[in-house]
Amino acid sequence: MPELRQDPVTLNWVSIAVERAKRPHTFTQAAKVVVKALEECPFCYGHESETPKEVMAYRSPGSPPDSPGWKVRIVPNLFPAFGPPTGDLNPRRVGPYTAMNGLGVHEVLIDSPEHYRSLAQLPLEQVELVVRAYIDRYIAHKDNELLKYMLIIVNHGKEAGTSREHPHAQLFGIPLVPKHVAEEIEGTKRYRNENGTCVYCDIIAYEMEAKERLIYENDTFLVFAPYASRVPFECWVIPKVHSAHFEAMTGREQHFFADALRTALAKLFYGLNDPPFNYFIHTSPYRDGADGTYHWHLEILPKLSIAAGFELGSGIMINTALPEAAAEFLRRVSVEEAERVRQGVLTRP
Amino acid sequence: MPELRQDPVTLNWVSIAVERAKRPHTFTQAAKVVVKALEECPFCYGHESETPKEVMAYRSPGSPPDSPGWKVRIVPNLFPAFGPPTGDLNPRRVGPYTAMNGLGVHEVLIDSPEHYRSLAQLPLEQVELVVRAYIDRYIAHKDNELLKYMLIIVNHGKEAGTSREHPHAQLFGIPLVPKHVAEEIEGTKRYRNENGTCVYCDIIAYEMEAKERLIYENDTFLVFAPYASRVPFECWVIPKVHSAHFEAMTGREQHFFADALRTALAKLFYGLNDPPFNYFIHTSPYRDGADGTYHWHLEILPKLSIAAGFELGSGIMINTALPEAAAEFLRRVSVEEAERVRQGVLTRP
Repeated sequence: MPELRQDPVTLNWVSIAVERAKRPHTFTQAAKVVVKALEECPFCYGHESETPKEVMAYRSPGSPPDSPGWKVRIVPNLFPAFGPPTGDLNPRRVGPYTAMNGLGVHEVLIDSPEHYRSLAQLPLEQVELVVRAYIDRYIAHKDNELLKYMLIIVNHGKEAGTSREHPHAQLFGIPLVPKHVAEEIEGTKRYRNENGTCVYCDIIAYEMEAKERLIYENDTFLVFAPYASRVPFECWVIPKVHSAHFEAMTGREQHFFADALRTALAKLFYGLNDPPFNYFIHTSPYRDGADGTYHWHLEILPKLSIAAGFELGSGIMINTALPEAAAEFLRRVSVEEAERVRQGVLTRP
Repeated sequence: MPELRQDPVTLNWVSIAVERAKRPHTFTQAAKVVVKALEECPFCYGHESETPKEVMAYRSPGSPPDSPGWKVRIVPNLFPAFGPPTGDLNPRRVGPYTAMNGLGVHEVLIDSPEHYRSLAQLPLEQVELVVRAYIDRYIAHKDNELLKYMLIIVNHGKEAGTSREHPHAQLFGIPLVPKHVAEEIEGTKRYRNENGTCVYCDIIAYEMEAKERLIYENDTFLVFAPYASRVPFECWVIPKVHSAHFEAMTGREQHFFADALRTALAKLFYGLNDPPFNYFIHTSPYRDGADGTYHWHLEILPKLSIAAGFELGSGIMINTALPEAAAEFLRRVSVEEAERVRQGVLTRP
């Protein structure tokens, strides 16, 4: 079982993932990421038996579990960083330290049967299915009192830490509200106390007026480069109208969210030649803490730079791209045009 | 001039390094780190004119500035992330945001004339010179009221973000106490209020008793793997006796610090085949905040893993190596034996 250990000074938690732990000598080869070739990909059709049994799938009527015929498929992670989802957390003191069991959920959500197409290139309907699956799995664990938060993330590309080429998300149901979410909730409350408004709503209003950091918008969602972007080409996808809970999206909102997310990713894909990136959803915790004051959103962090000694030691990021220049660049990338070009190339005789 | 921008929610600062800023289209090649070959290295003897003029050097008597003959050489960074060190910070509101000028100091400290030897392989006397130079530069900027903190860091290896192969440190004099240091100072105060003791002193006492995370010790310094290590093979070098100020080290303490740092780096070098790493010194701020309660130390973070979506979105690190196993592995690496083997190989006829 993974162990959660707390730094006694900063109170930050670390997950010591014993199940994924490697022997020390294996590190002498440095970080080698295994990206399996197509024919041995456990996330492709016909390889369903190579993953743990699926916990959910959107399938063609009549196709049996753990066989081809699915559109989106969710399986437990083979080497979970958190789990199992039941039991005693057993918080304990170890000398001056605190630890607890790393109970929780760690699932893998396979975006589609397509090995070589990420959300940027999949049809909008498929991205909508992926968004629906995020919500379904989020809700599936909501009543587990052990879980305080579910973090949904995507790692795309080796440099962004993915271990599998086949596009997928990971869902982490964890027994604490993570520091970064807690800080944003605290900041939202502080701002509301000082100004009487939602800081994210104020940011949205300002950005829609200023326009220089806008990247894309549709009826319900805005894509923009944050003023204090931490990395080159950072993009946020955020609902224009205040909403505390990601999982409360209506079908119509899911459609527009899928469109905004797909467009943001496609602009990165076509504009920057498929850069590595991470994204994650920040939403209200399952139960405590937010009282509807938080404003959920998705943060995309392209991995075009390395957080080095200064960033790690200070917590201050050095960003070598001006957010306004990055936004202008992405704003000008026409996804439709890029898709037509690619289509032309693909279908040329 | 670089601009410091503050996230209005988390209050985290980001340095938008306009001087180092790249045009958006240059990012399409993804993160390419330029590691210059030996013959074109501006940090080697005979290339002194290719850097900004030196601000300090330890030199053979009579050798003129910006010429060969130095043992340690410090120059301003050609593309500073902070600077210049004078002027008005001009804190300002931009809509809902806050920004200020990124004034400060950004220096490069070249460890030695040797292009291919890092601190792990340099003679102890040279490492002592490097430590003395850290202190000299730290003190040189102490009276600049603009600077609240000086962070001394090393990036080693491409994966750890270095842009130059020739071993060097970077010194950042900045106009604010960085978040990570502020959090540690706050944690130290909280622990002292609760327990009446220094949390780091208590950690040292516990680790010296428990022994399972010890890596090395000499008269004055301890090298150990923190209980909540964030990454595989994380090592800290810490003075055994309470000390708030890095720059207050006596000559004798500098000797033992150089020995502990060199030994830690050599154990990583020989045990893990020259892994990439970052290290940084956490000490009390120039003026405000710590009141002698902080306990300075140096943190080494090997770069054998990638902080991906979960870590970036949560602030919770997933560490796939057990700190006790990492410490045992490094404890067993004999630097003396490894050096004899290497010497034998090098001098074999």
